[in-house]
Order: sequence, then structure tokens, then C-alpha cells
Amino acid sequence: MYNPKSSFQPYHLIIVQDGDPSKIIKVPDGFDYELYNRNDINKILGPKANCISFKDSACRCFGYMVSKKKYIFTIDDDCFVAKDPTGKEINALEQHIKNLLSPSTPFFFNTLYDPYRDGTDFVRGYPFSLREGVPTAVSHGLWLNIPDYDAPTQLVKPLERNNRFVDAVMTIPKGTLFPMCGMNLAFNRELIGPAMYFGLMGDGQPIGRYDDMWAGWCTKVICDHLGLGVKTGLPYIWHSKASNPFVNLKKEYKGIYWQEELIPFFQSVTLPKDCTTVQKCYIELSKQVKAKLGKVDDYFNKLADAMVTWIDAWDELNSSGATAVPQGLCQVETFRLIEAQQVSDS
Amino acid sequence: MYNPKSSFQPYHLIIVQDGDPSKIIKVPDGFDYELYNRNDINKILGPKANCISFKDSACRCFGYMVSKKKYIFTIDDDCFVAKDPTGKEINALEQHIKNLLSPSTPFFFNTLYDPYRDGTDFVRGYPFSLREGVPTAVSHGLWLNIPDYDAPTQLVKPLERNNRFVDAVMTIPKGTLFPMCGMNLAFNRELIGPAMYFGLMGDGQPIGRYDDMWAGWCTKVICDHLGLGVKTGLPYIWHSKASNPFVNLKKEYKGIYWQEELIPFFQSVTLPKDCTTVQKCYIELSKQVKAKLGKVDDYFNKLADAMVTWIDAWDELNSSGATAVPQGLCQVETFRLIEAQQVSDS
Repeated sequence: MYNPKSSFQPYHLIIVQDGDPSKIIKVPDGFDYELYNRNDINKILGPKANCISFKDSACRCFGYMVSKKKYIFTIDDDCFVAKDPTGKEINALEQHIKNLLSPSTPFFFNTLYDPYRDGTDFVRGYPFSLREGVPTAVSHGLWLNIPDYDAPTQLVKPLERNNRFVDAVMTIPKGTLFPMCGMNLAFNRELIGPAMYFGLMGDGQPIGRYDDMWAGWCTKVICDHLGLGVKTGLPYIWHSKASNPFVNLKKEYKGIYWQEELIPFFQSVTLPKDCTTVQKCYIELSKQVKAKLGKVDDYFNKLADAMVTWIDAWDELNSSGATAVPQGLCQVETFRLIEAQQVSDS
Repeated sequence: MYNPKSSFQPYHLIIVQDGDPSKIIKVPDGFDYELYNRNDINKILGPKANCISFKDSACRCFGYMVSKKKYIFTIDDDCFVAKDPTGKEINALEQHIKNLLSPSTPFFFNTLYDPYRDGTDFVRGYPFSLREGVPTAVSHGLWLNIPDYDAPTQLVKPLERNNRFVDAVMTIPKGTLFPMCGMNLAFNRELIGPAMYFGLMGDGQPIGRYDDMWAGWCTKVICDHLGLGVKTGLPYIWHSKASNPFVNLKKEYKGIYWQEELIPFFQSVTLPKDCTTVQKCYIELSKQVKAKLGKVDDYFNKLADAMVTWIDAWDELNSSGATAVPQGLCQVETFRLIEAQQVSDS
């Protein structure tokens, strides 16, 4: 989850180590970071740790839960700094923060894209009452080189590369779902954090590679309900390597089948008016998942339970607002982190 | 409405002459065109001619009605050929036709933009059942240089120019309205023609500069109902001159006020299932305009009546399908056209 070639040194890193916790992650000097492996997750969450996936990139959402920062940027380990058409290196984090700090416009489409960007504005015919926009919760960045394709498309188009730099950021309109990729994603944790649960994927679960998609559908439905914005477009990162399409197909195939029922479900979800917080929305969504998707597969009953566990764990770790992680646990983690670094340096 | 600098020579042009019909329009040699002035419109439509605006760019929709072609491209007289970032001249018509010939994806957002374009596809998480898309009815192109701003924005930002070439085409999602600009617009006349009525604007009317907006709102609502797609983005044209913001303010100010009620109206319009043709949808829409917007201003009662007249006139001229214009009238127009050309050549 860290990217030594990019300019992450000024930022606080949370590294969630996937898989075997006995393996040592080597982090170069000069980074301000916390590292969590499976043992740490089990220790911090106790029995609630079963909501965090194992041997799947979905484990990253544990980092969202323990973070004490307002803005989260999550990136895959095979993503590097991309260049714009002039050859200049793109500061992805800076663009994400710009996206998150300026409003979104989910209620009406602006044909010149992000109206808050320098050199552009709302076009003729855009209602003035909607020009203040709404707070932006999510900034979804894109990928040059290897596009984020599913296994069937990877198999059909193994050589396709994304070389097109589209110089735009836009709001995804209210009521429209999108495939949220976790490869290059930023969000305002205070606004939407508890909805960014990456589900039950990977080890012991019937599917993988739908972690970010699940989070995206839940997040979009909740953002629409709460009047928050979701942007997509810039920044680009350089996605260096394609994952194995045969392995991906095995992980995905149930998801590919199930999503045909999931999308109509999420398209028709309505949340009651008294769902005024992300947590309330998410618990309500978990009930609807159980009621309507449980019959698709028993997996969704388990997932609905895990959604509730996730919120319980989130609230437990974030009970006192900004100082989210209990101080004692935080110290334990600091110790573990130093120890890990010493071992990796030897 | 014609653009001598662009490559329109292979195409059939319909020129609708705005204002004083005694003025002679000079069309260079080598163009295959029909020219209609106010006298022609009155002669062809008789009493129904009152649905066609006078002294306003809204008059152009008469051309949509008399055309016998499948694809219509409408362009303002101050629009010229733009160049892409490599300096190559953009063939706007070619891009519009590409947009209209490939499907649209209104039900789910594809983060890599138009999935049918070379070098791109649907991303992971895009439901397979939606990948065939729906027929595209409208291709909305953009403008480099002078952006399409309303009068207040023109006044606040007189020097702002659009220099950003965004290399993308995208579908505007179902349920989302957009400000459709008539400056650089193409559509499939067979699919959506009768909805492209530009309303009552200009001479004798309380507003102007909302002709294309009105058409866009009606068109989008009907496309959403009928399962047709609307795309925006490429191609760009070069918009050479900004219109006078003070004149524009006078034309627009009621529209700016009214649109705050029009947008919620169009956002909540639902059309009954038995509205299976564009004409039926449009007549139903006219009834709802009268019922719900008549109280905003009596203008909307007149507009609702004009919407019905427009459909009557459309059906009269297009009764025999593809051979839309009755042959007699067509011959009259050919004669008038030659006459006009002879005068202008002398």
C-alpha cells in the first residue's frame, strides 16, 4: 500500500499488511507510518476482527477505521506516479485534496465538467440555486497504462493499455451508480468513513475483487441520501502490472453473476429520513441487504452481519471523535511498528 | 448557420434565415442547400407557423422539421473548425456521427468514459447485462475559446476562455438533466426529432436564449423514458465571438428566474407507459407544462399550445416517413432556393 517513488513522505502512512503476519514488511527510512498485520487487527478488534477480510486487498479498510486523519488516500502497491501529457509528474494526492476541498454538483450536469476548476464555470442554463454545490466525500482517481478491467475483459484484450489522459474531474450525478476502484481513491473520512467498508472477500469467502465495488455502491447510495458528492477523473496514477486474469476469474465469477442482482438492488434502495448519519444509513442498508439479497446467496446474510460488526467496531475505535484510536492500543502499535522496522533494517 | 471554413460541402445544408426575409443570404458555390426565410415558413406551415420563433436562433428548429435526413447537425454562424492539442483540425461532423452510431450507457457510469471508443472498454464492476447499451439519440459537442456562459457569468468573467481540450465522450446518466447548447449539436432525427422543438423565443416573447435549453430538458426526459441515450463531450468547435452580455441579460433574466421552477418540474416529470413514441411523449409533456407551469407565468400556457402545434406541423410534413416534406412544397422551396441564389450571385 505504500509507494516509495511518489511523494508520500510528508504524509502519515497506515500500512495494512495482507496475508502471513510473520513476514516482515520493509519500509524505507523517512516515512511516518503505522503498520498493522493480521495479529494486530485481531488484538485491536477482538472478536469483531472477523469483519476484516484476510488475504485480500479488502483488508485495507482496517486502516480507514484506525486512522485519525480527515482525508484518506488509498493506493495499491503496483501503482506509481504517472505523467501528464507535458511529461510533468502528477501529484495525485494534491489533486485528490483539491477535489475533496471543492464542492460537488450531483443534481445537474455541467457540460464543461468541474465548474470550480480554474478557467471554467457553470454553463448557461445551469440553475443558480444549485451553484454552491454540496460537500465532496469521495475523489475517485483513474489509471494510465493497465486499465482496471475484469477478468473476462482482461482475457479478451490482454494488450489493451489506457494511454488517454482525460483532463477532467466530474461529479457522478445523484442516482447514478459507478464502479468505484480502490486503486487510487481518496475520501473525507469525517463525512463518509463508516461507509467505506470493503466487505468480506478473499480467504474463506466465495468472492474476491468486489471489495471496492461493494464499498462504492454502499457509499454512493449513502452520499446520495445525505447530499454528499462523489467525483471521478483526475488524478491519474501509473498502474504498472496487470494481475493474473485466470486467478481473477476464479475470484470474480460469483461476483460477475451476483452483480446482476446487486445493481438493481442498489439502484432501488431508499433510506428513511431518520437516517441522518453514515452509521445509521449503513445499519439500515445492512438490514435491506439481509432482507433482499439473503435469498440470492447465504453469503449476503453473513455480509449483512459483518456490516453491523464493522459499524460497531468503527464506533468503538472512534468514540471520542478525532482522537479515534484508544491511546493504549496506539502505543502498542507504535512499539510493534518500531520492532518491525528494526527487524527489517537488520 | 453555415460554416464555410468547415468541411460541409459533402453534406446537405438547410439554412433557416432569421429576421428580415427581404435580406439576401449569400451562399458560396458548391454547397447543396435549401434556404428558408420567414415567408417560406409562413407559406409551408400556414397558421401553424406561429410555433416557429422569429428573430431568435430558435427558428432553426424549422429546419429539423423539413429535413429528410436521418442525422441532423446544427451549428451557430459564429462557430468554426477547432484544432485538437496536436494542431490537427477537428472534423466535428465525423465525431458526432461516431457518437450517434455507437450506443450510450445511461444506466451505469463507466469511469473510463465512452466504453465503445478504441482503446477503452467497460471497467471492472460494470454489469455485463448493461454492456450492449442503448441507441444514441443526441450528441452534444463542446466549444473551445468562448464558453457558453449566461449573461451574469459573462459579465463577471469577460475574459475567460475555454482552452481545455477534454478528450472524452460520455453518456449523461438516466435521470440527470443537463444544459443542452444548440451551438454544436447533432441528433438522430428518426429517434428524437419531434422533441427538438426550440420553443417560443425572441420577437414578441418574454424570453430568449432558452430555446436550446428547453429542447434539452424535453429531449432528455423523453430519451430517459424511451430508453435512448444522450452523449456529451467531443467534438469541439471554435466559438469565435461572445455575444453582448447586456443584450443577453435582457433576453435571459426571466429564464434565469423561471428555470428555478422549470428544473424541479423536469426532474419530477414522469411519462405514462403508453407514451411509446416521441410525439406521444411530447404531447403528454405539453399537458404537464400547462398544468404545472401555467401558474408560473401565462407564457407557459402559450408554450404548451405551441408544443402541440409543433407536433401537428411535424406530423403533417412527415406523414409519409422518410420522404417527409410533401413533394409540391419541396419543389416550391427548390425554386425559391435557386431564385435566392441567383439574386445573391448577381
